[in-house]
Parts: sequence; C-alpha cells; structure tokens
Amino acid sequence: MKFDKPVPLTQIASLINAELIGNTTAQATGINEIHKVEEGDLVFVDHPKYYEKCIQSAASYIIINKQTDFPEGKALLITEDPFEAYQTIVRHFRPFAPSMQMISSTSSAGEGTVIMPGAYIGNHVQIGKDCVIHPNVTIMDHCIIGDKVVIQAGAVIGSDAFYYNKKTNRDIHYKRMLSAGRVVIENGVEIGAGCTIDRGVSGDTLIGAGTKMDNLVHIGHDTVVGKNCLFAAQVGIAGATIIEDNVILWGQVGVSKTLTIGKDAIVLAQSGVPSSLAGGKTYFGYPAEDASLKRRELVWIKRIPELWHKIMKHE
Amino acid sequence: MKFDKPVPLTQIASLINAELIGNTTAQATGINEIHKVEEGDLVFVDHPKYYEKCIQSAASYIIINKQTDFPEGKALLITEDPFEAYQTIVRHFRPFAPSMQMISSTSSAGEGTVIMPGAYIGNHVQIGKDCVIHPNVTIMDHCIIGDKVVIQAGAVIGSDAFYYNKKTNRDIHYKRMLSAGRVVIENGVEIGAGCTIDRGVSGDTLIGAGTKMDNLVHIGHDTVVGKNCLFAAQVGIAGATIIEDNVILWGQVGVSKTLTIGKDAIVLAQSGVPSSLAGGKTYFGYPAEDASLKRRELVWIKRIPELWHKIMKHE
Amino acid sequence: MKFDKPVPLTQIASLINAELIGNTTAQATGINEIHKVEEGDLVFVDHPKYYEKCIQSAASYIIINKQTDFPEGKALLITEDPFEAYQTIVRHFRPFAPSMQMISSTSSAGEGTVIMPGAYIGNHVQIGKDCVIHPNVTIMDHCIIGDKVVIQAGAVIGSDAFYYNKKTNRDIHYKRMLSAGRVVIENGVEIGAGCTIDRGVSGDTLIGAGTKMDNLVHIGHDTVVGKNCLFAAQVGIAGATIIEDNVILWGQVGVSKTLTIGKDAIVLAQSGVPSSLAGGKTYFGYPAEDASLKRRELVWIKRIPELWHKIMKHE
Repeated sequence: MKFDKPVPLTQIASLINAELIGNTTAQATGINEIHKVEEGDLVFVDHPKYYEKCIQSAASYIIINKQTDFPEGKALLITEDPFEAYQTIVRHFRPFAPSMQMISSTSSAGEGTVIMPGAYIGNHVQIGKDCVIHPNVTIMDHCIIGDKVVIQAGAVIGSDAFYYNKKTNRDIHYKRMLSAGRVVIENGVEIGAGCTIDRGVSGDTLIGAGTKMDNLVHIGHDTVVGKNCLFAAQVGIAGATIIEDNVILWGQVGVSKTLTIGKDAIVLAQSGVPSSLAGGKTYFGYPAEDASLKRRELVWIKRIPELWHKIMKHE
Repeated sequence: MKFDKPVPLTQIASLINAELIGNTTAQATGINEIHKVEEGDLVFVDHPKYYEKCIQSAASYIIINKQTDFPEGKALLITEDPFEAYQTIVRHFRPFAPSMQMISSTSSAGEGTVIMPGAYIGNHVQIGKDCVIHPNVTIMDHCIIGDKVVIQAGAVIGSDAFYYNKKTNRDIHYKRMLSAGRVVIENGVEIGAGCTIDRGVSGDTLIGAGTKMDNLVHIGHDTVVGKNCLFAAQVGIAGATIIEDNVILWGQVGVSKTLTIGKDAIVLAQSGVPSSLAGGKTYFGYPAEDASLKRRELVWIKRIPELWHKIMKHE
Repeated sequence: MKFDKPVPLTQIASLINAELIGNTTAQATGINEIHKVEEGDLVFVDHPKYYEKCIQSAASYIIINKQTDFPEGKALLITEDPFEAYQTIVRHFRPFAPSMQMISSTSSAGEGTVIMPGAYIGNHVQIGKDCVIHPNVTIMDHCIIGDKVVIQAGAVIGSDAFYYNKKTNRDIHYKRMLSAGRVVIENGVEIGAGCTIDRGVSGDTLIGAGTKMDNLVHIGHDTVVGKNCLFAAQVGIAGATIIEDNVILWGQVGVSKTLTIGKDAIVLAQSGVPSSLAGGKTYFGYPAEDASLKRRELVWIKRIPELWHKIMKHE
C-alpha cells in the first residue's frame, strides 16, 4: 500500500507508539510486505529469523520488536508488537469506510461502460472504457479495472485476503491481517460468473491484459497473473503466486501459494501444483509433472498385476 | 426444528390425518431426524428396517406407517406416508413466506454491525454485534449470526438442503425433503466470498466460533464445524458431517457425508475424505490417508519400471 | 440461434459484405454451429479441413472464405473472414441491449412464481408457474425456465459461453465468440446456490426435467443434461457435453467437453471424465473407469513394496 502522500516517520512512530531511531526526519511512502517493498516503504518484522532480511531489504524503515544494527539512512521503529502496529497503520490510512450506495459516488467509469443492475461498485473504484459489469457483481474499494473488461454476473473483485496470524495462547485462534491492497485488472480481461479475486494484503493482486477466466475461479491475494492466460472453470490459485504470460490452466486445477508457473505452461484438468513449474511444457496429475511421464506412470500402474504373476512363477 | 411452543399431539394427528395411539394427551416440542431428536420431539420412519431404532430413540412420538410395540409414555402417529406427513408438518409450522424486503423487518442486527448494499437478510435472522455483511450476501430465514462475524460478498447462508427422497414408479424422480433447520454461525467466524452454507433439514448447520473459510467453500446441511477451523478455497463438505475443533482443510478438499474428522487433523490440498479420520494427524490423497504413507506410495509408484527390469532379468 | 422470422440471404450478404452464389433468393431461418445446424440455417467455416463437412451438413447456406462446389439448392456467402461475419450477424440480430431494471418488463413469470429481492431477470426471460427464484439470482436475456423450478440464492443462469478464437499474430490473444444461445431449464429442476450455467454459443444449454444440482455447480455452454440427474456440490461440466437421463455425479467431479455420459451412469466423487462413458455403470478416478477395477488398482499399488521384497530375494 502506498500512502496518498509521504508521511513523516515521526507521525507513524507516534501513531503506533514506537521508539524512532536512525533517520528520524524521513518520510515514508507506503507500507508493504517484504516481497513487495520498495525504497521509501515501511516494512514490519517480529521474528528474529527475518530481522536481517527485512533490514537489508529495499524497505527504508523497519517496524521491529528489538533494537538491532541497521544501515545508514534507514530507520527503526521499535515497538512491542509489530503486527499490531501494521494493523494500526492500515486502519489509520486505509480505514474501512464502506460506501452504502450500490455505486459509490467516489467511483468512476469510462465511456461506453455498462454497469448492470445489482452490481456494487465501492469507493474509489476506477473502471475503464467499454466494459460490461454484469448484474450482482461486487467490486470492492480501490480496485482498478481497465478498458474492454467483461465481468460476468455474481463475480466478486476485491474481497479481503485469506491471511491470518495464528495465535496460540491457551487456545489456537486466528487473527486476520488487514487487507490494504487492491485488485488491478488490465485491459481486455474477461472474468466468469461467480469468480472471486481477493485483494492484496499490502500489494496488489494483478490480472494481466487479455487473460480470460471461466466461471467459479478463485484467485488469492497478491497473486500476479500474466497476459493472455486462460483459466477454465473452478480453477483455484492460492495467494502470492506468479502465473506468467499465456499459461493455460484447465478445469479444477489447484495451484498452491508463493510459487511461479512459467510462460506458456499448460496444466491439464484437475491437476494440483504444489511447487513451481518451468514454462513451455504440459503438466498433469498431483503433484503436477510432465504430462507424458505421468501418462506413462498410469500405464505402469496397470501392469502391477502382471508383475505380480511373473514374480509368483519364481517363488 | 423446535416449535415456537409445545403442540398437542392431537393437533398434529389431525393435521397429518394420522391415528394416534399411546400417550394421546402429550405435547410435542419439535420434529427432528433420528440423529438429532431429543425428548419431546417427533420423528418419522417409513422403513421397517429403522422402526426399532426410531421407537427406541430419544424421540417421544413416532410418525410411522404401521402399528408396532412402543414404550410406555411414548405415542405413535400412524399414517400411510410418514415422509409426506413430515413435509406437511414443516409446511404448517415453518411455512415458506419469504420477506420481499432486502432487509426483513423481522430481522435484527447488533450495535456496530454493518450490512452493505445488495445484501438480503431474511425473516427472523439475528445478527450479533460488530459484524460486516458484505454486498450481495444472502442470509435466509431464521439464521443466527454471532458477534464479530465477517461474511464476504456474494456468500449464501441458509440455502435449502440438497436432500431428496428417490421415488421409483415408472421413472426415477427425486422429491426434496423440505428444510426446516437453520444455519447458526458463532462469534468471530469469517466466511469467504461466494461460499454457500446450507441450512439443516430438521436440525441446524453449525459453524463454530473463530472458524475461518476462504472463498467458494460449500458446507452441506446439518454439518457441524468446530471452533477455530481453517478451510481454504473451494473446499466442499457434504451433509451431516462433523468437523471437530482446529481442523485444517487445504484447497479443494472434498469431504463426504455423515462422517467425523477428529480434532487438530490436517487434510492436504485436493484430498478426498470418504470416511472418518482420527484427529491429530495429517492426511493426503484419495482416499485420504496418513500423508507420510501416501508420499511413500508415490515414490513406490515411480519404482515400478525398475521392478519390471529386475524381473525381466530373471525371465 | 433462430431468427425471429426468416431473413433473405441477400440481406445477410449485404450485412456481412459477402458475395452470394447459388440459391440467391432463399431465406435463412437462423445461424448455428456445425453440430446444431438444421435445414434453412446458416453455418460458417473458415478452415479448408472443414469445408466439405459444412457444405454437406444440414445447413443450407454456408459462410465461407473460398468459392467451392456445393449441392443444388444451397448457397455460399463468400467473405474474407467468416468468423467476423458470424459475429456481425449475432451483433445485428441478437444485439447486447441489457435491461437496466432488476426485472425486465419484457420478461414474464407464471402464476404462483415468487421472485425474491435482489434477483435480476433479463429481457425476454420466460419463467413458468410455481417457481421460486431466490435472492441475488441472475437470469440473463432469453432464458426459458419451466414450472416448479427452484433456483437458490446467488446462482447465475445464462452467463456468456467461455469460447474463444485463438489468434496468433505477434502475440497470442483470444477473441470471444459472441453467445447467441440460451439456457433452457425444464420443469421441476432445482439449481443450488452459487451455480453457474452458461448459455449456448449458437444453440441452447438444456437442463432436463427433474434434474437437481447442489451448490457451486458449473455447466458449460451448449451442454445438454438429461432428466432426473443428480449433481452434487462443485461438479463442473465443460461445454457441448451430453449427460443422459438419471446420471449421478458426486461432489467435485469434473467432466470434459464434447463427450457423452450414458443413461444411469454414476461417477464417484472427485473423479475426472476426459472421454465418453457408457451408461449403467459406476465410475471412479482419473481418468474415470469402472469403479471396481479402479478400487482393485488402489489395492495393487499398496502391494508394490511386497513385490519389491519378493524380487530382492532373487537378486
């Protein structure tokens, strides 16, 4: 998430009740997770295992629960619970203040765009030209929709990320990390009926130009989908995954989180993708592997009884 | 389903045109299926195979198609078609009389709760405090929602049970058993976009406190989900199943009906659960079994060609 | 798609800027894809591989990109880009002119039918008697709904077909073939919450009388479902497939396109169907095969380690 304008670190420190050391006169441009940070951003870290990675990242200002060394020009904001500090910053700069109109007066839509009855368009949503937003679609706050985008009925764009901190005191319980990100949909994208696309936690979920999705597809938070991909019905992609250009996922394929599927890859129906796949090949099965190898494996399985009988001759 | 107040058996008998024998002056407190009945309830049975079980159950009053022995204090309501009698009772005491307002005036919502545009809230729905009901959500009649519950856009709470009686006269056809139950959602539950949770046939579908579901999850009728469970996107759970506390189901897992998944169990993505699973373990595959065994099995499958070549040496 | 009344070929030729040869005084009754055409229809073909099939099909008038021989009484409409000509005809005779009312004044509903709040009913939709259309359902233009049909909340009937022409110039991109077809739902059908049923590209998607679907089921364009089928939750069926009467598909089953599942077949949960299945049998697995064979295969897989140890004795 980027702030609307740079915010003095002193103001952030006061908001989250943190001790500020280092470059105390600096201004922060936004707050992001470690894999999304840019220079000028805040980041937060609460586990010593990740201290070094965060301090050495592109982030300029680190919200942390212990004083530690850091490079010149950066700053630390030291506070007991960096996760809660993050929540406080999101709540302050991106407060939940939902529009109670079906089409928010702070949203905009370009020439030639049709928004059909029952569609909800949240605050600060920008929709381009020549789009069709079908009935009963929901587009939540801050989402950006390009030109010539078609969103079929009942789809949901910009639902909150499914992203929780597990807390174990006496009991297990889960605390949602507040979503501050958006969904950005580029030109020429078409989204099927009943699809759900979560917004990013701190960054954006992105659907690249020309990509087409059939019905009931799920796209997790912070996932980045390339250009001209095809996703058949009921595909599910977890959070923070990268799908490169021209990837085809057939029906009911499931893709796990924080992995990459390379350009031009094809994944056959019902396959499961637990780890990254190189581009340019066709995959199948769980775990998804080269489709021709997998098909041969299915033939081998059919030969087990024959194997058994061969062995029994020697017993 | 409980009646609003106890109903004389004579009135029930007259409504369904049944012969009443036994404790004819008694009053019924409700009607339920065999696995949900409590003392004071009606139950119905139309197959001799289940006569004994129903007559000996906690139910006090049995709608049955044949006179048979029964314990002192209970009563029989004898009628030709107990299933139709059940339908008649549900139609009478829980008639389908839908609200034609987006938010029924017979529903209520606690302080701090936000109901966004396009959400439909049916008759007698009770929503607690500090909830967010996102746009285009549907909550059907009689559902109960606790405090601090978040329901993302497009989700449906309280759709009718998918529960049919198969009739084979000349043709096969299916007759829906009317749903009289509710969905009860406890405090702190979060439901993803496009999820669907069916109400119970005669009892309640229950989602325990603190449980979180990602998008496009399906929960069948009369299913009971424990506290602090996590269900990833596109999980499907069939009817009358029990999911105990802290269970984690990863993406696209399918769970069959009338089984139990024990406390703290984890089921990995795309697995299928056809029968009960003990708690505290991690499962994988179809049929879901101990994940480490299943992974070893995948390795063994890869060794079949090697096996084949070893044998061919001996041929 | 049938035209509202027969259209002179000369008018079509002028609309798509084609050279008309053969039976130039004829009138066309509609335009359809090759597998749906009837006498009097237009069809289009742009690949020499399919010229002969189209010219010899039931279609009377062929939109084609090259002059070729054709039977007496038929006609050719020769134009550079037959696909674009098809799009032009659909745009002209079935223009996208969505109703901006929640319930279009050009739609109709029979006696006893209840349309609940938030439901969108498009232009020229016909709904029969004694139906219940639950809240936030979307029914798009031209769909036909029979009597005693129940559509649970959030379902979408008549979304556009997921059907694209792949264009490879410098880049891959996809161009949607415009949908001109409808969804036709026969008497007594029940559709679960959040289901999506796409309309046909040029023909109709059909759901046969008495068929029942649980929640979040997807039915592709031009698919024809028989009578009294049961589809459990999260089933997905791709386009132009035929499901015969009394077929049962359990939860999360996936069915590929342009195949046939025979009468009375049962496909067990999570199975995948890549090719046609004969009726009357029970199937399981991916690719779905006879369930008893498949179960035996699972047992054989468990015996691989035993096989291995038997062989090692002989090494």
